[in-house]
Amino acid sequence: MNMKNLSPYLGAAYYPEDWPFEEIDRDISMMKKAGINVVRIGEFAWSRMEPEEGVYDFKWLHNVVDKLSAADIAVIMCTPTCTPPVWLTEKHPEVLVVHDDGTREQHGARRHACPNNPVYRQYCIKIVTRLAEEFGRDKNVIGWQIDNEMYPAQKRGCCCPVCHKKFIDAMRRQFKTIDDLNRIWGTDLWSQTYKSFEQLPIPRSDTWHHPSLLTAWMNFQSDSYVEFTKTQSDILQKLTNQPVGTDMMPVNGVNYYKMSQVLNVMQFNHYNDMENLWQAAFWMDFIRPLKQSPFWNTETQTCWNGSTSANGYKKKGFCVVNSWLPIALGGEANLYWLWRAHWSGQELMHGSVISSSGRPLHIFDEVKEVSEGFKKAGEFLNNTRPVKSGFAIHFSGYAWWLFEFQPMVNGFKYADKIINKVYKPLIESQIRPDIIDPASSLDGYRVLLSPFLPTLEEGGLIERIKKWVYNGGIWIVGPMSDIRTIDATKYAKAPFGYLENLCNIYCKYQIPGDPEDFTIQWEDGHKSDGSVWYDGFETRGAKSIADYTEGPLSGLSAIAKCDIGKGQVIILGTLPVREDLKSLALNASKKADIIPVAASENVLAVPRSGQAGSGMVILELENRTGKLSLKSAMRDLITGKLYNGDIDIPPYSVMVLKDV
Amino acid sequence: MNMKNLSPYLGAAYYPEDWPFEEIDRDISMMKKAGINVVRIGEFAWSRMEPEEGVYDFKWLHNVVDKLSAADIAVIMCTPTCTPPVWLTEKHPEVLVVHDDGTREQHGARRHACPNNPVYRQYCIKIVTRLAEEFGRDKNVIGWQIDNEMYPAQKRGCCCPVCHKKFIDAMRRQFKTIDDLNRIWGTDLWSQTYKSFEQLPIPRSDTWHHPSLLTAWMNFQSDSYVEFTKTQSDILQKLTNQPVGTDMMPVNGVNYYKMSQVLNVMQFNHYNDMENLWQAAFWMDFIRPLKQSPFWNTETQTCWNGSTSANGYKKKGFCVVNSWLPIALGGEANLYWLWRAHWSGQELMHGSVISSSGRPLHIFDEVKEVSEGFKKAGEFLNNTRPVKSGFAIHFSGYAWWLFEFQPMVNGFKYADKIINKVYKPLIESQIRPDIIDPASSLDGYRVLLSPFLPTLEEGGLIERIKKWVYNGGIWIVGPMSDIRTIDATKYAKAPFGYLENLCNIYCKYQIPGDPEDFTIQWEDGHKSDGSVWYDGFETRGAKSIADYTEGPLSGLSAIAKCDIGKGQVIILGTLPVREDLKSLALNASKKADIIPVAASENVLAVPRSGQAGSGMVILELENRTGKLSLKSAMRDLITGKLYNGDIDIPPYSVMVLKDV
Amino acid sequence: MNMKNLSPYLGAAYYPEDWPFEEIDRDISMMKKAGINVVRIGEFAWSRMEPEEGVYDFKWLHNVVDKLSAADIAVIMCTPTCTPPVWLTEKHPEVLVVHDDGTREQHGARRHACPNNPVYRQYCIKIVTRLAEEFGRDKNVIGWQIDNEMYPAQKRGCCCPVCHKKFIDAMRRQFKTIDDLNRIWGTDLWSQTYKSFEQLPIPRSDTWHHPSLLTAWMNFQSDSYVEFTKTQSDILQKLTNQPVGTDMMPVNGVNYYKMSQVLNVMQFNHYNDMENLWQAAFWMDFIRPLKQSPFWNTETQTCWNGSTSANGYKKKGFCVVNSWLPIALGGEANLYWLWRAHWSGQELMHGSVISSSGRPLHIFDEVKEVSEGFKKAGEFLNNTRPVKSGFAIHFSGYAWWLFEFQPMVNGFKYADKIINKVYKPLIESQIRPDIIDPASSLDGYRVLLSPFLPTLEEGGLIERIKKWVYNGGIWIVGPMSDIRTIDATKYAKAPFGYLENLCNIYCKYQIPGDPEDFTIQWEDGHKSDGSVWYDGFETRGAKSIADYTEGPLSGLSAIAKCDIGKGQVIILGTLPVREDLKSLALNASKKADIIPVAASENVLAVPRSGQAGSGMVILELENRTGKLSLKSAMRDLITGKLYNGDIDIPPYSVMVLKDV
Repeated sequence: MNMKNLSPYLGAAYYPEDWPFEEIDRDISMMKKAGINVVRIGEFAWSRMEPEEGVYDFKWLHNVVDKLSAADIAVIMCTPTCTPPVWLTEKHPEVLVVHDDGTREQHGARRHACPNNPVYRQYCIKIVTRLAEEFGRDKNVIGWQIDNEMYPAQKRGCCCPVCHKKFIDAMRRQFKTIDDLNRIWGTDLWSQTYKSFEQLPIPRSDTWHHPSLLTAWMNFQSDSYVEFTKTQSDILQKLTNQPVGTDMMPVNGVNYYKMSQVLNVMQFNHYNDMENLWQAAFWMDFIRPLKQSPFWNTETQTCWNGSTSANGYKKKGFCVVNSWLPIALGGEANLYWLWRAHWSGQELMHGSVISSSGRPLHIFDEVKEVSEGFKKAGEFLNNTRPVKSGFAIHFSGYAWWLFEFQPMVNGFKYADKIINKVYKPLIESQIRPDIIDPASSLDGYRVLLSPFLPTLEEGGLIERIKKWVYNGGIWIVGPMSDIRTIDATKYAKAPFGYLENLCNIYCKYQIPGDPEDFTIQWEDGHKSDGSVWYDGFETRGAKSIADYTEGPLSGLSAIAKCDIGKGQVIILGTLPVREDLKSLALNASKKADIIPVAASENVLAVPRSGQAGSGMVILELENRTGKLSLKSAMRDLITGKLYNGDIDIPPYSVMVLKDV
Repeated sequence: MNMKNLSPYLGAAYYPEDWPFEEIDRDISMMKKAGINVVRIGEFAWSRMEPEEGVYDFKWLHNVVDKLSAADIAVIMCTPTCTPPVWLTEKHPEVLVVHDDGTREQHGARRHACPNNPVYRQYCIKIVTRLAEEFGRDKNVIGWQIDNEMYPAQKRGCCCPVCHKKFIDAMRRQFKTIDDLNRIWGTDLWSQTYKSFEQLPIPRSDTWHHPSLLTAWMNFQSDSYVEFTKTQSDILQKLTNQPVGTDMMPVNGVNYYKMSQVLNVMQFNHYNDMENLWQAAFWMDFIRPLKQSPFWNTETQTCWNGSTSANGYKKKGFCVVNSWLPIALGGEANLYWLWRAHWSGQELMHGSVISSSGRPLHIFDEVKEVSEGFKKAGEFLNNTRPVKSGFAIHFSGYAWWLFEFQPMVNGFKYADKIINKVYKPLIESQIRPDIIDPASSLDGYRVLLSPFLPTLEEGGLIERIKKWVYNGGIWIVGPMSDIRTIDATKYAKAPFGYLENLCNIYCKYQIPGDPEDFTIQWEDGHKSDGSVWYDGFETRGAKSIADYTEGPLSGLSAIAKCDIGKGQVIILGTLPVREDLKSLALNASKKADIIPVAASENVLAVPRSGQAGSGMVILELENRTGKLSLKSAMRDLITGKLYNGDIDIPPYSVMVLKDV
Repeated sequence: MNMKNLSPYLGAAYYPEDWPFEEIDRDISMMKKAGINVVRIGEFAWSRMEPEEGVYDFKWLHNVVDKLSAADIAVIMCTPTCTPPVWLTEKHPEVLVVHDDGTREQHGARRHACPNNPVYRQYCIKIVTRLAEEFGRDKNVIGWQIDNEMYPAQKRGCCCPVCHKKFIDAMRRQFKTIDDLNRIWGTDLWSQTYKSFEQLPIPRSDTWHHPSLLTAWMNFQSDSYVEFTKTQSDILQKLTNQPVGTDMMPVNGVNYYKMSQVLNVMQFNHYNDMENLWQAAFWMDFIRPLKQSPFWNTETQTCWNGSTSANGYKKKGFCVVNSWLPIALGGEANLYWLWRAHWSGQELMHGSVISSSGRPLHIFDEVKEVSEGFKKAGEFLNNTRPVKSGFAIHFSGYAWWLFEFQPMVNGFKYADKIINKVYKPLIESQIRPDIIDPASSLDGYRVLLSPFLPTLEEGGLIERIKKWVYNGGIWIVGPMSDIRTIDATKYAKAPFGYLENLCNIYCKYQIPGDPEDFTIQWEDGHKSDGSVWYDGFETRGAKSIADYTEGPLSGLSAIAKCDIGKGQVIILGTLPVREDLKSLALNASKKADIIPVAASENVLAVPRSGQAGSGMVILELENRTGKLSLKSAMRDLITGKLYNGDIDIPPYSVMVLKDV
C-alpha cells in the first residue's frame, strides 16, 4: 500500500490508551464508514509507553497501528512529552514549570515541564528515541508530531532557575558585555543599570519592567521551545524518513518561522467559530509558505469545542466547509479533534466524530461527505498547488511580543489588528496573500505589505527590502513600522530607523489614534477617516497620496509614495479604513499584474495549477449565498456539474472547479 | 416556665461580650418591647470564655443567661469554635487553614482554622465540653448551635498537610488499590496514572485538574466539616438534652444531608432581597424534610445587610413577611441577625433591631407586629404542621460539586438553574415540593422530579427509584441526569447509566444548548423552545410527549414517557420552558391526586393540619397584590377576619387562615 | 541673575542621564525657543550619581546644571532615592518592599524600597547628603524635590518585617497597654482580643480584617513616608537655603497635611483629561493653603499620557489652559512631564515637549504661547496672590483611609464624592474654597463645609470648631460626619460623637442611600431628592430646613440649622443634590459676605490682589464658550484688550484681567 496515495488526508486524533483494546475493531469499522484515512495517536500516552522508569511497553501501540494498517488507515505518531508520568515529576520535581509568582506546576495537567530542564530533556530523549526505534520504519506511520501545542506557560513562561540561568547566558552571548546591554537597552533610565548579567531578573508580571527586558525574556522563552523541539526533531530525523512537525496554535508564544526551520512539515490546530471561520484562513496563509510541502491541519473541531463544558453548536454545513478549508489553502490533511469523545478527564465534553459511547454524532454524515469530496477531487488536488499570487503581508512573532509590552496606543492588539483590519479587507477583495515572517525570502512577491512591523532589523530585512524594491517590488509599509530597534527601544535620531531616508519624507508630528480619529483626503478628493495611529509627513521628494484635513496634522501627508529604482514604497502614516485599504491594495496589485478572482467577499476562491491542470477551490465561509464570476467554463469535480459566467455559491458550499 | 410553649420563636443574635454588662438591662427591656423571646449567644466569644489557655470564665455568660431567663427570654447557646483566640493560633500556627496557593490564614478574621487539624480539634473539644458542662442543663437554654456557617474556605477548602494526608487516606479507603482508582477515574488520559495514593495532589485552582479528582477533593472537604461537626455534636448530646444544630447557608460547600445525620435540629441562615425573597423558600423546602422536628431560621436581616458598608434598604412590610417565611414553611423559629448593631469590627453597618447606640431602628414596629402575630397564631401553628404535598424535587450537594467542575454546557450553574428554572415555575403553580437529597427516603412521595442529577448512584438511588416507580410513583427525570458515574466520569457504553433501559428509549444525538435553543412540538400541537441541553431520543417502547421540529434532532423525541409497573417515568431530553414545565408538573400532580391551592404566583400558600385543625399560612412575597381562592370559609387568626371565595392578598401581607 | 525674577516658572522634567552629553546644547536651544525657564533633574539618576557603592560622580550633572545656568534656565534638583541602584538591592535584598502576599519587589521598576528600612535609609542619607553638598549652594538650583510620587505600594504598602515591627511599636506608643487597644478597638468581637502588641498581624488583603487595624496600618504607612521624607528634608535644609518639597499625586496614600509639615514648598503632579480638568483645581485648592508660599505644579502632561502605550490626545488649547491652571490657583510654577520623550524603558510613549528624536511636538507652539503669557502677566502675578474667599471645605487623608475600609454605604468613594458632588457644584457657583485638612487652622474662614468627615477628633478639631462657630462661623456638616472615633469605631452612645448635643437634634433613624433615594421638602416648598445617606432628625431646639416626605423618615428633618453664639451650624442628614447644595452654600456665603464672581460654570475666575493691584485670572476649562460679568473695566494683560460688562470667554482661553 502506498499511503501517499491516500491524500488529501481526512483523519482524527485517536486515544486508544483510554479504551479497552477490544473496542478498536468497532472504532476502526466506524472510521471506515466515515471515510477516515489517517489517525493521530500517541499524544499524551507516555505513562502507557513507559509505565515505570526505563520499562517500556509498545506492544499495545503496535497492535493499534497494525489494526489500523490492516484497515488502510495511516498513522501520524506523536511523541508523548507533553505529559510526563508521575514517577518522573515525583522523582524530579525540579523539572516542573515555575510560574512568575514562584509557584510550581503540578502533576495532573499537561505542558507542565520546563522545556529547558536538562533532566526532563534526557527523559524526553529516551522516550522519543525508543518510540522512534519502534515506529520510525513502520510503513503505516506517515508522519510524526512532536509533543503538543507548545507555548510558554501563563504570563512569563517558565521562570525556574534553569531558565533564568539560560536566559542570562543568552543575554551574555548576545551582548557580550553588560555595558553594551546597558547602552543598547538604555538602562540609565530609572537607575536600572546592571553591573553583571547575573543581575538580570526574571521580569515578573507584578512589576513594571523594562520592555527591552520583557521582549528579550519572551523571545528567549520562544527560543527555548524551538530548541526543545529541535532536540526531538533531530532524533526523529535520524530514525525515520517520514516528515516531522509539531502542532501549532494561532496564539502568541513561539516564533513559528524559527520553529519551521527545525521541522519538515507544518502542523496546525484551530478551533474557529461560525463568526470567525475566515480567521483560520489567515493562519493557513501563514503556515503554508513556511514549507514547500503541503501543511497538515492536525486539529479542528467537528462541531462544538469544550473541556468540561460544551460550547458552540455549529449549523449544518460548517463541518464540511471547515474541513475543506486547509485543503483549499494548500494543506493536504484535515484531522478532527477528536475521533471518539473521552469518557474521563479534563476534556470530556468536546465535540467528536463519535461519542464516548461509540455512537455517531449528528455531524457524522458531514464527515462522510467530506471524505467523499476528497476522493472525487483527490487526483486534481494532489497534482496541483495553490497559485502564488505574488502578494505578501508581513507578520512577525517577534513583533507580537514587542507589541505585547509596547502596545504604543491604547487597546492595540497586534494580531487582531492585522487579521481584522488588514487581512480581512484584502481577502474580501480576493487578494490571496502569503503571510510571511520578516526573515522569509521575498523572492516571487511583487507586492509586499508591512503593517505594524515595529522593527525592520529582523533577519536583515531592511537591506533585503531595499534591493527588492529597487528591482521592482511595491512595498506598502506602516503605520507603526520601523519605529523600534531590534532591542525594543526607539531610534533616538528620528521616529523611524530607515523610512524617512528611503521614502524622502520627514515625519513632522505623530498623534496616537486615541480617543479620536482624524480625517484624510485622498488624491481623488474623497475623504475618510484614518485609524490606529497618525504620522504627519512632509514630502521631501515623495508624493502625497492622502493629506490630513483637520487637527494638528492638517496639511501634512498621511500617506505618501516614492518611486525607487523600478519599484515603489507607499508609506502609511495611518491605517486606511476598509474600503480605502482595499483600493490601495488593488491598485498596487493591478500595477504588479496581480488579478484577483471575481467573487463576493464571503467566498474564498483559491486558484490552483499543476500537472493535473488548473482550476480553483471555492468555499462559502459565512453561511449565506455568495457570487462568483467565471471567465470560462469550469467543472465541479465533486458534483460533475459544469459552470460558466456569474454563478451563485450556496451557503457553506464547496466546489473544486477545474478548467475544461 | 416551659420554654417550649414560647414557640414560634422570634429572636435575634446577641453579643453581650461586646458590651458593658451594665447595658444588658436596657437591651432586655427593649427585647421585651419588641416581643423577642429567644436570643442566640456565645458565637465567636471564645476569647471571653477562655481568655488564656485552660483558664475559663463563664461567669459573665451565666449572668447574661440568668438575666435573660428572668425576663423569660430563652437562649440558643453557640459553640465559639469559629474564632479561636490568638493564644491558640499563635502557639499552633499549623491549625490555620492553608489556601491552595500556599498562604496560611491569619488571626483577625473567622473560620480560619482547619476542620481536620487534630490540635485544633482537641482545643475545640475542651471548650465545647466546658461550655456544655456549664450550660447543658440550664433550663433557659433551649438549644445549641455548633460553630458558625461552615463551608470550605476559598477555592479548594483547606489545603494543609493534614487535609492532604487525610484525603489520601480517604481515597485509599474508597478505592483500596491505586490501580482501581486509575481504572475508575480513567487516569490513562494525559498520562495522569498514579503509582501510589501518596502521589495524589491537592488539586490547585491554578491547574487544569481531572474532574474526578476535583470532585473527590471537595467531597472530602465537605466530609471534613461534617466530621468536625459530629465531634462537637457527640459531646453536646452527652451533656445536654436540648436539640443540637449548626447554622447553614444557601451556598455550595457542605453536603447538608450528611450534615443532618449528625444533628438534632436543622438551622438555617439566609439574607435574601426583595427581588429574590422567594428563593429562601427553596432552601426552607430543602431544610424542612431533613428532620421530623421543625427547623430554626437562625439568621436573617431585619432590613439591610452590610459589613463595612450597608446595602439594600427594604420597603415597608418586607421585614414582616420575611420573618414569617420560615414559620409558614414549617420552621418554629425566626431569629434576626442581629439584635444590636456592632460598635466595632468588621460588620458594623449591618441592619439590626436596635442600633449600636441602642435606639430602635425604623423596622422596630415591624418586629413587634411579627411577635404579636406569632402570639395570636401560636397555638394553631404549634399544633399543626405543613401538609406534605407528595411532590419532591431532587437536589444534591454532591451534584453541585460535580457540576462545579463539569458544567457540561456553557454558563450552567446547577443551583441557579434548579431554583430559577425548575422550582420557581412549580411554586408559582402552588405545587409545594419537598426538596430532597438523593439519599433521602422516597416514602410518601407520589411525584418526583430529578433534574440535572448527574449520577443516580448516590445512596443506591437508582434501585430505590425503580421500586418506587414500579409501585406507582411518577418520576420526571432529566435533562442531564444519569450522565455520570459516582466517580464523575461518563458511562462508556451509553450516554446514560440506566435511563435507556429503564425508559425504553435510545438517545441518538445530544446537542448542548449553546449558543442557541431548539424548538419542540408537544402532543397538543403547540410549539415552544427547549432549554439548557438537547437529547434526541428514539422511542423504543416509550411514547414521545414532545418532538424536535428543527435542526439535527428534527423528528426525534425530546420528552418521552414510559409506564413501568403502576408508575411512570417521564424523561426530559431538554428542560421545558416555564409554562410547559408547569403543565407537565401539574398534569403529573393531578394524576397523583396532588391538588394545589388556587392562588396567584406571588402568593405563598402553605396548607397546614394537625391537632389544632387545618388551615393555611398565606404570605405575599413580591410587594404587589395577589389573589387567593378559598373553597370554604376561613378565619385569619391574626386579624380575626373571616374570608371566603376569591380574595385579594395585599402586598407583603401575612394571614394565618384556619378552617372554620 | 536673580532666578526668582523668573517666576512664574514654566518648565519640564529633563533626564540628561539618558542622553549623550553632546545633545544638551540642542535641547537647551529648543528650551529657549519654547520659553522654558526651569527644568527638574536628577530624579531616578542614582546609578549615574553613585555607579558603585561609595563612588560618586556628579561631574556630568554639574556640566548639565552649568549649561542650563548659562542659558538662564533654573534647576529643581531631585533626590534619586526612588530608584536604588542594582548594587544596593543585590547586596541588601531586605530593603525591597514586601507585598502583603509575601512577594518581594524586584529591581527594574521604581519605588521598590521600604521607606522604613534602616539600611536603605542610610544609603539614602549618604546620596542625599552628597548631592546636597554638591548642589546645595549652586545659585542656579532654585529648589529641591525629594524622591518621587511617594505612596504605599499596592494594597497594604510595605509589609516587610521592619515595617511590621515598627507598626507594633507605633501601636504600643499610641495605646500604652494591649488592654487599652483591645478596649478601644473593641476586639472582643470575633475573639480578636490580643494578649500582646507583638500579635498584631499585618492585615493582609486576602483576609477580612478589623477596620480599626486596617486604618491604623495604612495610617502607619502614611507616617512612614512622611518620616522618610523628613529624613531627607532635614539634610537638605541644612545644606541648602532653597525650598524643599516632594511631588505629590492626587491619590490616596500619604497624609499631605502631615507631609506639608516637613517641607518648605508644596509640589504637585497631575494628569487630568479634557473631561476632568476641573478636578485638578480641587487638588490645587487643597495644596495651596498648606503653605504660605506658592506651590509648584511639578508635573503635568503637554498632550497625552502614556507608558508603553499613548493615550488621550487633547484638543487645541488644552495645553495652554492646563498650564495656566496652577498659576491661576496660586502656584508659581508649571512643569511638564517631560521635556524630551524617553528613547528606552517603561514610559516611552508619554507626551512631551519635544519627541525622543528631538523634534517639537504639535503642542510646541502652545508651550510657547504659555511662556509668552507668563512673561506678559508675570509682574502682576508675582506681586499678587489669589484672594482668600473665606470658604473652606474639609478634606482628610485619614478619612480617606477610614472610608476605604468602612465605605458605610455601597459604592461610596470618599474623594470621588467630595470632588464630584460637593466641590464641583460649589465652583460652578464661583465659590472659591480652600480645601483644608481637619488639623488646619480655621482662622480667616467664615463658612466651613465638613462633608463625610467621619471623625471630628483629628487635631482637636471639634473643640476648635465649637469656638470658631461661637465666634461667628457658619459650619455646614454632614452627612456621615462625626460618626466614628479617631480609632475607626462607632460611638456607642449615639450615632454621632458631638453633633446631637451641639446642634440640638436627635437622630431618630438612619437609612443608607442604597438602592434608592428619598425625597425631601425644603423651607420654600420645593422638593428634591437627597443622596448617599439619610439621617432623620427630631429637632430639639434646632430648626429644620428640609423635611422628609416619604418612607420611614417621613416627617423627620433631613437638614437642620442651629444658631450657636454668633455662628450657626447646619447639619446635613443627607447630601443635597447639585442645585440645592449650591443654594445652601450660596446662602451661607451671602450671610458671611462672601460674594462670588459672576461667571458661567465652565469658567474659572480667580480674584487676585496684592502690591501690583487687583484683578483676576480667567480660564475656560471645558472647551466651550463661557460668560463673565465685569462690574468695572479690566484689562487683559496678555492681549492688552480692555473689557467691561458681560463678556464671552472663548473655549480654552486664558485672561489675566487687571482692574484699571
